[in-house]
Amino acid sequence: MKNFVYSIPTKIYFGEGQIQKLDKILAPLGDKVLLMYGGGSIKKNGIYDTIIQILKENEIAYEEMGGVEPNPRIETVRAGAALCREKGIQVVLPIGGGSTIDCAKAVAAAACYDGDAWDLVKDGRKIRKALPIVSVLTLSATGSEMDTFAVISNMETNEKIGTGAEILRPAASILDPSYTKSVNAYHTAAGTADIMSHILEAYFSNVEGYMQDRVAEGLLKTCIEFGVKAIENPDDYEARANLMWTSSWAINDFLVLGKRVAWSVHPMEHELSAFYDITHGVGLAILTPHWMRYVLSDQTAEKFRTYGVNVWGIDKDLPAIEAASQAIDKTAEYFRKMGLPSRLEEVGIGEENFDIMAEKAAAQLRSAYVPLTKEDVKEIYRRAK
Amino acid sequence: MKNFVYSIPTKIYFGEGQIQKLDKILAPLGDKVLLMYGGGSIKKNGIYDTIIQILKENEIAYEEMGGVEPNPRIETVRAGAALCREKGIQVVLPIGGGSTIDCAKAVAAAACYDGDAWDLVKDGRKIRKALPIVSVLTLSATGSEMDTFAVISNMETNEKIGTGAEILRPAASILDPSYTKSVNAYHTAAGTADIMSHILEAYFSNVEGYMQDRVAEGLLKTCIEFGVKAIENPDDYEARANLMWTSSWAINDFLVLGKRVAWSVHPMEHELSAFYDITHGVGLAILTPHWMRYVLSDQTAEKFRTYGVNVWGIDKDLPAIEAASQAIDKTAEYFRKMGLPSRLEEVGIGEENFDIMAEKAAAQLRSAYVPLTKEDVKEIYRRAK
Repeated sequence: MKNFVYSIPTKIYFGEGQIQKLDKILAPLGDKVLLMYGGGSIKKNGIYDTIIQILKENEIAYEEMGGVEPNPRIETVRAGAALCREKGIQVVLPIGGGSTIDCAKAVAAAACYDGDAWDLVKDGRKIRKALPIVSVLTLSATGSEMDTFAVISNMETNEKIGTGAEILRPAASILDPSYTKSVNAYHTAAGTADIMSHILEAYFSNVEGYMQDRVAEGLLKTCIEFGVKAIENPDDYEARANLMWTSSWAINDFLVLGKRVAWSVHPMEHELSAFYDITHGVGLAILTPHWMRYVLSDQTAEKFRTYGVNVWGIDKDLPAIEAASQAIDKTAEYFRKMGLPSRLEEVGIGEENFDIMAEKAAAQLRSAYVPLTKEDVKEIYRRAK
Repeated sequence: MKNFVYSIPTKIYFGEGQIQKLDKILAPLGDKVLLMYGGGSIKKNGIYDTIIQILKENEIAYEEMGGVEPNPRIETVRAGAALCREKGIQVVLPIGGGSTIDCAKAVAAAACYDGDAWDLVKDGRKIRKALPIVSVLTLSATGSEMDTFAVISNMETNEKIGTGAEILRPAASILDPSYTKSVNAYHTAAGTADIMSHILEAYFSNVEGYMQDRVAEGLLKTCIEFGVKAIENPDDYEARANLMWTSSWAINDFLVLGKRVAWSVHPMEHELSAFYDITHGVGLAILTPHWMRYVLSDQTAEKFRTYGVNVWGIDKDLPAIEAASQAIDKTAEYFRKMGLPSRLEEVGIGEENFDIMAEKAAAQLRSAYVPLTKEDVKEIYRRAK
């Protein structure tokens, strides 16, 4: 196990009705907040009204910024930061899924930065200061509610880049699983695929952590147990709760501390959603099994076998390559069972940008679990076609 | 899943050589520290000298209190608190295993309390203030390095009581697995049994958490993988590291949040070590399989089967009661494999105090996984004889 420093100070208020603590959560942080949200579904399901009522009752001043995009854009970040400075905002309060929280993180950092916000996306080391963030989660997927990352898109340059800094971890997050009961089947499936992908990215690594990997397997089993259940019965609180709490732990650093991890599938997917604006989790679900099959070899078979035996209950006495292959089939099958597409063409992606996307992705895949070149990535895209 | 608030702000500095960050860790907390330690093994293995050198080089003033008992006593807590007040101590710095850290927590709280320290042990709600604690761990067992608890003994009244408060969580802990290479086989085994027991106490509960239980299984597998390895090869850093990091997560609350947990074996064991001053983990290893067999029934068989299948790799197609029974045998066998005793008489405990110990333990077992009366506890003691 490698040396590390563990520090996850985010406080989590988990469960139905925890929103009622919002005033107490905000009290030590500031009394002028910026509400951020996406397309406005929070206005339909009552969350918006509840929050406004709490803010008004407690005389907490607020500004609003709606319309954050599913893949949040740098223009939105710039506008949010300008609003923060103009209005003297003290706390950023995103209400939504990962996109809204990611955008809020970038806004929180950009509000404290003199240069252009895109600098901070391109280089997380420039993030030295940020407004505190309190998030209210409405979609289990990205784990942004407890992590340091933010992914921001620049459609002008077709770039979708992840940035991050310790101070971007939310001070507190409210995780009320009942808020996700209204998430439709497609987005529940995509969110679950995203959670699973985060765990898998941490799991397949060259410097292993035994304990971390056993925990990762437990989290994967949780996704598998409850992903389909949440889709079949959207009101299943237990399913929603397990997916939500797992989303946070998939990517809050616990699974990677002590290991050496470099993501494989996310960089390939980020190009898809940068070029085509598709749902991130859908891209991951399409690419993951193809990536697995592409990197399966005598060198990696043992790890895939362990994955198959411990996560999918595959017979441990099978030859490694056989068990590994079954594990990959099971993975693909589960994504299909959740109703997710398994081919790029199903989401309108053709070969036209394979070359440029592969080139960009490969730049981040030199030290991946199995290092991938541009040609490797192109071949994976082709097989996923 | 039940509602909960998650907050574990303890920073962990994990890995070989992390002690060199001690001055930076102490800087924001204070510049007058109380070093606490036990029998003095830290003076033999160099840890003491390293720490003194860091403190001197950085002009951090310190007082010392050695001789903390394996089951720390209230007299020691009182003396430590008096020393803190007299010398204006700002940070308590325990160097050792759970006993030393537990004692330091009680000292940190008692130093800020006007009444008698035993009040705080009897009722954790009275702990409102405490000096910050920075622990240096030298034994993987109790998890005190990242939790809120402290167990203190009063030999006059034969009481061994656990107290706790959020502010007793160490501000930071240094976890250097290489410090545990000198821990002998017996204490490595007892420590591992303690870790496993913490996980099992969280695991067997009436309000389940699916995700939490899958994580618990992963942690149990880690103990099983590395307990014997650390005993057979004391210098195995990977084994020491996995046990150490698992010790923290076994009991830092993560496994129980969202569930309803009431411990079963710990209350029964606390009586043993209160009356006989035996090693806590040894008492747990003796009692655990007997407790398991006693509470195994048609009602609990399914949970024990899950434990057997997921932790011990027992055939999932066996009848539940059969799989459960095999899982219990495996548990007992593993403790024996680590060289631990399996009978009370092996550690010098006879029937003489079964009655009074059972009465005291039963007072805390009314809402356990399977509620136990005084007669139940006596019967478990008898079977463990």
